[in-house]
Amino acid sequence: MRDVAILGIGMTKFGELWDHSFREIGIEAGFQALVDGKLGSHDLGGLYLGNMASGAFLEQEHIAPLILDYAGLAGHHLPAIRVEAGGASGAMALHEGYLAVASGAYDFVVVGGAEKMTDVSDTEAARIVDATADTEWELVFGATLPSLWAMVARKHMHEYGTRREDLAALPVHDHQMASKNPLAHFRNKVTLDQVVNSGMVADPLGLLDCAPLSDGAAAVLLGPLEGARKYTDTPVKIAASQVACDTMALHHRRDLTTMDSTVFAGKRAFSQARRKPSDVQVAEIDDAYSIGGLVALEDLGFVAKGEGGVAMRDGRFFGKGPTQINTSGGLKAQGRPFGAVGVAQVVELVRQLRGEAKERQVAGAQVGLAHNVGGTGATSVVTVLERMN
Amino acid sequence: MRDVAILGIGMTKFGELWDHSFREIGIEAGFQALVDGKLGSHDLGGLYLGNMASGAFLEQEHIAPLILDYAGLAGHHLPAIRVEAGGASGAMALHEGYLAVASGAYDFVVVGGAEKMTDVSDTEAARIVDATADTEWELVFGATLPSLWAMVARKHMHEYGTRREDLAALPVHDHQMASKNPLAHFRNKVTLDQVVNSGMVADPLGLLDCAPLSDGAAAVLLGPLEGARKYTDTPVKIAASQVACDTMALHHRRDLTTMDSTVFAGKRAFSQARRKPSDVQVAEIDDAYSIGGLVALEDLGFVAKGEGGVAMRDGRFFGKGPTQINTSGGLKAQGRPFGAVGVAQVVELVRQLRGEAKERQVAGAQVGLAHNVGGTGATSVVTVLERMN
Repeated sequence: MRDVAILGIGMTKFGELWDHSFREIGIEAGFQALVDGKLGSHDLGGLYLGNMASGAFLEQEHIAPLILDYAGLAGHHLPAIRVEAGGASGAMALHEGYLAVASGAYDFVVVGGAEKMTDVSDTEAARIVDATADTEWELVFGATLPSLWAMVARKHMHEYGTRREDLAALPVHDHQMASKNPLAHFRNKVTLDQVVNSGMVADPLGLLDCAPLSDGAAAVLLGPLEGARKYTDTPVKIAASQVACDTMALHHRRDLTTMDSTVFAGKRAFSQARRKPSDVQVAEIDDAYSIGGLVALEDLGFVAKGEGGVAMRDGRFFGKGPTQINTSGGLKAQGRPFGAVGVAQVVELVRQLRGEAKERQVAGAQVGLAHNVGGTGATSVVTVLERMN
Repeated sequence: MRDVAILGIGMTKFGELWDHSFREIGIEAGFQALVDGKLGSHDLGGLYLGNMASGAFLEQEHIAPLILDYAGLAGHHLPAIRVEAGGASGAMALHEGYLAVASGAYDFVVVGGAEKMTDVSDTEAARIVDATADTEWELVFGATLPSLWAMVARKHMHEYGTRREDLAALPVHDHQMASKNPLAHFRNKVTLDQVVNSGMVADPLGLLDCAPLSDGAAAVLLGPLEGARKYTDTPVKIAASQVACDTMALHHRRDLTTMDSTVFAGKRAFSQARRKPSDVQVAEIDDAYSIGGLVALEDLGFVAKGEGGVAMRDGRFFGKGPTQINTSGGLKAQGRPFGAVGVAQVVELVRQLRGEAKERQVAGAQVGLAHNVGGTGATSVVTVLERMN
């Protein structure tokens, strides 16, 4: 397999984009990535598109050729391929785009992630989103994504003495970072008190522990690392892209507080990249639910199992330790257009590794890690990026 | 890229499988492929799953880990990846599985295709299926998949003197072949008169010109060609796997009677395989609508543009020429569980190339071709297979 680099990035504003259609945001992010990577469309080899549920949200399937078409590229007769993995659809599309370039089958591909979620009612959207858990064995009995994650939180609190406030620390950090991110869905800061006392969704998780439903798109341009400097001054190498799956239903896991999909994807990714957690300066961690971010840090080996709560309390990942997380604002505050999230995480890491993150810049960032989850951890995708000096 | 072979095949009955759930049929086909390829599950590297619209049909997204889980394989923490490309979802999943093995990232993967379409009303199913065309620019104005294909048929009749009976010849052949296929949805034979006089769907297409909505699943086991004989006596090489896309909406095409996605995918596939149409003894052609099969034969170069009608009339692809098509019964009679179709085509070709197709066997088959379409040709996937002697 040849080495693969990220040559360009693009991203729309995340939020309630009622004046932009799905095809518009998909095209906007994709073109930005092409322009940023200085690639003419005639050199493009294909499009990979991560999207969770365009069928349910928009009554439109088969959306990869749709985006390519309305970008004016139908005449090139390129391959356009949609990938779905619940909330991890974006990172999974990146995995597939990475393999396509690594294999040598394609030279340059755009990997996009896009989701339009706010054109239906919140109730309907919640129903659609919940369908990434096990419909027949979880949803039928009344479970929802937040209620399942709430069980993980309760168990973690019981098992390790994690406090309600420890969960709340991550959303506070996320909003703090998003206040510096012009593309973020939420740019307001929130306090620990506000998170702890936010309207209850599923005990102990309040509204401010849960990422929003957002519209938005993000894209990256991939190409062979060899020759990458023709397109960018700062190629970012995909040092690892790894996927692992687990049981669909939470009740089938060996341990409610451990996402084995993250454990395995993480181990494989660190092994492929020949890195360890302490080598990572910037990480985008899937914090769709505050507890999810906390256990992910444990499962990825950034902190020992059970110590996630203390680490949050101490702000160890908020600027005080070797690894800083969610400089974008995370899913919680940058926003959560499901299929776009995994790509947006990588866009933020590329900004950081290039030194273009402005107010959010982590000094000397060389290695970045992105972690994206589907369902309650039935899928995890871990990507490791490395700045090429 | 290393060479990739098909080591095992599996397939459920196609039809109205009201007593089997989506997860059951997915697992059945996958396990058959593993057993046929003599691969222990501990050696499996991952699962690719083609599926069009499980969200709309079953209120279940994120289905690739679901199938892996209920197959009892969650403990291996393998990657499980869903691919969607409308009616071409199955062939697209095969493309992705092929790239994954060719790249060297994975050694052995199961590629499955599955769809469960008969648990909703026919009206609802038609609505879901139509969403593989352009919702905003076609469906909103009352178009449906059959009505769009009917326009292609009318134009072809006008342009080239193709007759109504020429369209009907393919369904007659399909039912003839399916009568010998125990897994087919329809096993009854039909006459030219019956097709021509079948209830009108969209002039000139009658009910018997249109493939049914089916439930079903198919799977293949892929691995490196090198060493393939450890798993099978007759490895079948994937000599080419190519994807091309076109405009979503039919009215944007340069010519209504030419699917450029098929033209480009076909040319690239013959070039990759270093073959030409006359080298192909068996082909599975996407005949979701009779006219679709007819123009595909032209667009793939099996017959000159405009001569598809005459070729059908003469039975040139029904046993009288060098290439025989749709020995499975095609989408029309073997059945059309959307996401499974592209994989099922390849399963039939492998049976033929191995010499295991029994009553349907084409003598001396060495090279096979599968052609799978999404929407009205926004996506085409062409796969060329070759028996390794």
